[in-house]
Amino acid sequence: MLVHFTKMHGLGNDFMVVDQISQKVRLRSEHVRRLSDRNLGVGFDQLLIVDPPSDPEFDFCYRIFNADGTEEKNSGNGARCFAVFVHEKKLTCKKTLKVETAGGPLLVTLNDNGQVTVDMGKPNLDPPSLPFNVETQAISYPLKLAEQQLDIGAVSIGNPHVITRVDDVINTAVDRLGAEIENHPCFPNRVNAGFLQVLSRTQGRLRVYERGIGEILASGTGASAAMVYGRLQGWFDSRVEIQLPGGRLQIEWSGEGHSVKLTGPVQRVFEGQIFL
Amino acid sequence: MLVHFTKMHGLGNDFMVVDQISQKVRLRSEHVRRLSDRNLGVGFDQLLIVDPPSDPEFDFCYRIFNADGTEEKNSGNGARCFAVFVHEKKLTCKKTLKVETAGGPLLVTLNDNGQVTVDMGKPNLDPPSLPFNVETQAISYPLKLAEQQLDIGAVSIGNPHVITRVDDVINTAVDRLGAEIENHPCFPNRVNAGFLQVLSRTQGRLRVYERGIGEILASGTGASAAMVYGRLQGWFDSRVEIQLPGGRLQIEWSGEGHSVKLTGPVQRVFEGQIFL
Repeated sequence: MLVHFTKMHGLGNDFMVVDQISQKVRLRSEHVRRLSDRNLGVGFDQLLIVDPPSDPEFDFCYRIFNADGTEEKNSGNGARCFAVFVHEKKLTCKKTLKVETAGGPLLVTLNDNGQVTVDMGKPNLDPPSLPFNVETQAISYPLKLAEQQLDIGAVSIGNPHVITRVDDVINTAVDRLGAEIENHPCFPNRVNAGFLQVLSRTQGRLRVYERGIGEILASGTGASAAMVYGRLQGWFDSRVEIQLPGGRLQIEWSGEGHSVKLTGPVQRVFEGQIFL
Repeated sequence: MLVHFTKMHGLGNDFMVVDQISQKVRLRSEHVRRLSDRNLGVGFDQLLIVDPPSDPEFDFCYRIFNADGTEEKNSGNGARCFAVFVHEKKLTCKKTLKVETAGGPLLVTLNDNGQVTVDMGKPNLDPPSLPFNVETQAISYPLKLAEQQLDIGAVSIGNPHVITRVDDVINTAVDRLGAEIENHPCFPNRVNAGFLQVLSRTQGRLRVYERGIGEILASGTGASAAMVYGRLQGWFDSRVEIQLPGGRLQIEWSGEGHSVKLTGPVQRVFEGQIFL
């Protein structure tokens, strides 16, 4: 079968996107593994498949597959690419889309400037949600490392994140501290670690260490967690721009009980056709 | 400008191929660097550009650019992809092509089974051509390493290769021995190292350590050098199949004074279009 696809990225996190609505193709796990190879196939972090919704209250169903063929529940960067894709392919002219995903319903909005806003859901500050072994919930906790003690926030928003404020994020030893936090005995399932420099009430700079991976160029859930921690500490207003090594994200959060809205860029790279 | 391209690979060595004959596009170094990025661009080991020849005695001019934008003189895998590309794009119907390259004239032949034969030129056994600091030219030389002594052949065919015969190439410590040979004081410009297991008079198994890189999946020049050394030693007939981790190459060499002919597969992966 001939498959038409689009290669896209959001802050360097790259995707092959396939429309299974207007094309009569069905990709399977073994296709995904072959296609993900960066030398022998198309190459991507994740494959996004656009399907018709199973329930008419949704506009689309969208599925995410990792390079190894396993299915993923959610991807902030992927959701932004998905939204631009369905507009460019004229599969919809609606600006706000209600999408069925393996991780539950998702709301995405295409802005007039081409950026996309994704509703990340409500942050969870309850320590067992990370899980984080601590007696009582707080905004900030002391965390003892080998050579120093940090003040950290602990926020779960799809993924569990520890956030710590630093004076100069560029000169922070992200890999060393990140690995130490990731493997701290208080986090039995390990944890992601964000290092936040507050630039003003509306701007922050963030570097993220992802558990099992190391420092990454961008993390939507990490930027959302940093916003939540910074706002609870009183450092940030309700809208903030987070600068990551891979690019900038705008984040809006009105406070507890509200969901986090994340806005960021999408880049279409090329169109392709492959025989499978 | 809109650029149509084809993504191809030969034994896992991957290429973006652009026809500048029927398309009015001109790619520059800065395009190559952007396009080579595997997350933000198309992603490839090398970019191949097909141009009209500057001299009518040639059928095509073909140029090779590395991912960093620098120009390369030759690529055996690239030449095979180039030959299949110009046929699939119907730029020629000739089966044997005389091609202008930065490394000099090149002869490539498309076989009926879809494989491509490249004339690799005559091997050079003269030690200064590698360079290899040794008194007199021989078929085989003793090379003293830290813990053992090897019998090696030294063959230059575009690139300098040391070849050593082993009984069981799968259980050979290619990275450790390769690094030791690469940096041996007898090779002032360092050297590639091939480990050859002779399976029969027509079959060999080879693993190659590339200087500055480490073990690689396939090397056309390495396989050619292994054939030359094996034939001079009397182990091989004039046609041999060399099995590499990335795939199989057929090599023909009639002996001194003749050029080495290398035949191997080509895989077209996908067609693409990108705006630059």
